[in-house]
Amino acid sequence: MSVALLEQDGLSVMNVGLESFTRSVTERGGQALQLDWQPPGDADASLAWALANLAGDADDPQCIGSKIDVANKEAVERIVAAQPMLVDVALHARDVWPDIGRTLLHAGAPIAWDKMCGPMRGAMVGAVLYEGWADTEAQAEAMLGRGEFKFAQCHDYGAVGPMAGVISSSMPVFVVRNETFGNMAYSNMSEGIGRVLRFGANGQDVIDRLRWIENVLAPTLQTAVRAIGGLDLRAIQAQALLMGDEVHSRNAAATLQFLAAISVPLADAPGDRGPIRETLEFIAGNSQFFLNLSMSSSKATMDAVHGIENCSIVTAIARNGVTTGVRVSGLGKQWFQAASEMPEGLYFPGFVATDGNPDLGDSAICETAGYGGSSLAASPALVQLVGGTVAQAVGYSREMYEITTARNAALSLPNLDFAGAPCGIDIRKVVDNGMRPVVTTGIAHKQAGVGQIGAGIVRSPMGCFTQAVMALAQAKSAC
Amino acid sequence: MSVALLEQDGLSVMNVGLESFTRSVTERGGQALQLDWQPPGDADASLAWALANLAGDADDPQCIGSKIDVANKEAVERIVAAQPMLVDVALHARDVWPDIGRTLLHAGAPIAWDKMCGPMRGAMVGAVLYEGWADTEAQAEAMLGRGEFKFAQCHDYGAVGPMAGVISSSMPVFVVRNETFGNMAYSNMSEGIGRVLRFGANGQDVIDRLRWIENVLAPTLQTAVRAIGGLDLRAIQAQALLMGDEVHSRNAAATLQFLAAISVPLADAPGDRGPIRETLEFIAGNSQFFLNLSMSSSKATMDAVHGIENCSIVTAIARNGVTTGVRVSGLGKQWFQAASEMPEGLYFPGFVATDGNPDLGDSAICETAGYGGSSLAASPALVQLVGGTVAQAVGYSREMYEITTARNAALSLPNLDFAGAPCGIDIRKVVDNGMRPVVTTGIAHKQAGVGQIGAGIVRSPMGCFTQAVMALAQAKSAC
Repeated sequence: MSVALLEQDGLSVMNVGLESFTRSVTERGGQALQLDWQPPGDADASLAWALANLAGDADDPQCIGSKIDVANKEAVERIVAAQPMLVDVALHARDVWPDIGRTLLHAGAPIAWDKMCGPMRGAMVGAVLYEGWADTEAQAEAMLGRGEFKFAQCHDYGAVGPMAGVISSSMPVFVVRNETFGNMAYSNMSEGIGRVLRFGANGQDVIDRLRWIENVLAPTLQTAVRAIGGLDLRAIQAQALLMGDEVHSRNAAATLQFLAAISVPLADAPGDRGPIRETLEFIAGNSQFFLNLSMSSSKATMDAVHGIENCSIVTAIARNGVTTGVRVSGLGKQWFQAASEMPEGLYFPGFVATDGNPDLGDSAICETAGYGGSSLAASPALVQLVGGTVAQAVGYSREMYEITTARNAALSLPNLDFAGAPCGIDIRKVVDNGMRPVVTTGIAHKQAGVGQIGAGIVRSPMGCFTQAVMALAQAKSAC
Repeated sequence: MSVALLEQDGLSVMNVGLESFTRSVTERGGQALQLDWQPPGDADASLAWALANLAGDADDPQCIGSKIDVANKEAVERIVAAQPMLVDVALHARDVWPDIGRTLLHAGAPIAWDKMCGPMRGAMVGAVLYEGWADTEAQAEAMLGRGEFKFAQCHDYGAVGPMAGVISSSMPVFVVRNETFGNMAYSNMSEGIGRVLRFGANGQDVIDRLRWIENVLAPTLQTAVRAIGGLDLRAIQAQALLMGDEVHSRNAAATLQFLAAISVPLADAPGDRGPIRETLEFIAGNSQFFLNLSMSSSKATMDAVHGIENCSIVTAIARNGVTTGVRVSGLGKQWFQAASEMPEGLYFPGFVATDGNPDLGDSAICETAGYGGSSLAASPALVQLVGGTVAQAVGYSREMYEITTARNAALSLPNLDFAGAPCGIDIRKVVDNGMRPVVTTGIAHKQAGVGQIGAGIVRSPMGCFTQAVMALAQAKSAC
């Protein structure tokens, strides 16, 4: 479509659609503006048709689009009403899942050993060594290759793990309950940054730290959490948003709040003081410690939103390092997957973009609950770590409002004059606006055994959302 | 001065100066714009002349203005180079000042008992009761009225105290050393908010808390600080500016960092665990705890800047609740004073603006070192406490750039794309631009015995700066 404007100084044209038309005007000396616009569904007629069918209609409350609107309203009400509390620390994953055996949990959608990315393979090898199921790296790899261990996704255990997200039987886990709805969520514990299992490192230093987490950190945190009797994670997250965190890739303020909360009961806890000092020292030196708690808080929040009939709200975004998968409240347990993209960001000295692995980890659960990329406006300091400007950080949150359903007044963003955080990503809006969710993330080396090499920002692939829209349209066509 | 512009549609006038001229044009149907401008020195010819004489001149390095520019450059280099470290906790003020006896230190410039504001009188009564020098409030007041105690200003003891700033012999003090220049600074300890001595409250609860600070908090903090071997206060302040504090009226992030730092050595400190738990609990519940450390850090920074010949940089702003006093590096110990103004802000439920006392306390030392109003851009969350918008908060810092000498790269402000904080308030610029320093502050009830009733923002009176400019011009006229 083109609009021609006859002005004093000649013909001006504003063109929407084929760019060649704009060129043909400018080549002949005319003025032409090419509008940066694409039809919903990226010119895919069946997708555009599906979207149109899924749109709400104020005059027809019985149409499927209107039913979706009602379901989505319920979904965002549940997000706002969530009360994720850290209620306990389980010393071993098997205490929570007695049947876990030799199953290795991992981030993202299911994936076979020979398809796994380097950092996930590295983490699997590390977990096998840590559990003592193999003595050498080579032995562990061979056993994994022969299929001696089962794999399962964290999400189906009610769990979330950052990056490779590998959780095995002996690893301790945080136990989180959404007090409003009664559902549980779990995550492993932060190892710090650099050479760590979740980024694919698996040397002796990594294994030793995992053992210290099991034997020192977890029992100490269990003592503290039980003494407190439960810790309100969203209150910490909300306060952290006022203190420069987006509570995904920056957790400096949330970690300090957590440390303050546990330091009080640990001050006069009975028993040996050494482990308590080591625990406080470890957390004080690890500003991302709270990430796993932010994730399990987000998981507890979003699981209570899953399974609402007709609902088009995203309840999980998870990446296995090869694909990014999206789950939708009204579409069951199916992952809508597309190839993970490369984050754009800053690299640690000595590493470059071509060293990086595509987007990885369950941590994008944070974005679905309103943190991370959704609340990037709260975290100007993060742009120092991932690149970009403060204005861009604020811009990302503004974009997220375009593809979400409501504003969560419980999470306010100072730099947007305390507006509530974007709440409830709607697959219809993502596709209709052609705007993909913004996710803040760490960057793993693509080879097993190296670890974290940077941090950045990534978009979830549009393919996840177009597939989900088609699936929702198909599921509802019979209604 | 007026500029007449002849345009197609008649006469337009832009007027600078007497507003009556603008009116005379508009009353006759003409268009006239009155420019909002005042001559430097607010139309005081001798002040304007003094300012002109103090201005730098690139072509004449021997003129006094150029010498001032050189001195000011030295001053801001000292501010940037400062390394204020918390090196110890003195259990009693008399350990630092053996001759303090019954002298009562207070905030701001010297002031007699019968001229003191309500909250300062209330705090004096409380200090006398706390020291056991009187048994009842009435007795204490009578003794104070009879002149049985000496008064002295905190600043002349190298100390700073928030609000009334009363420090007496038995009160513990923080001991801060500027490692770059070797000078020392001191402050008392935060009691929390509400009914507290520094805001003029003096009930039994207040006295009991002061005793707890002396007997529990101070010894515990002494143990922690000695175990750490010194704590880098500016590193905490710089990080806090990235976390939503301006480190004067908001110290939430700085306090958490301080708590994290002391919780580690206290975890396995020898002795009774009870006092350690009480200490951590008190600080965790008092987000303004770090204020007194921010003040003594600022005092240690600015005392090293005082006494530079020809220097026109402000080294202290201090309010005794009646007057605001300003000290200037090159003008000795003289306070340039004018009546304190009322802060504008928000009041706790049950209180209104007419209950408030004029601006009070030594805490504006923070602004002279680049914190508080100078760095308000860093603290959008503070506007929730003091009123206003985020854009206004950023605007205050932009204003402070107009009256300061440099940007302190060690203190970066995220919302100004990480620009360094305004550094070195120049009395010449304050008067020349007609822009008064912005100070964030608590608000005390004007009556003795009540306490804090709100928080807000205040400007230091122009009279302090015009007097200082005249004094500098006079002192240098013989050169």
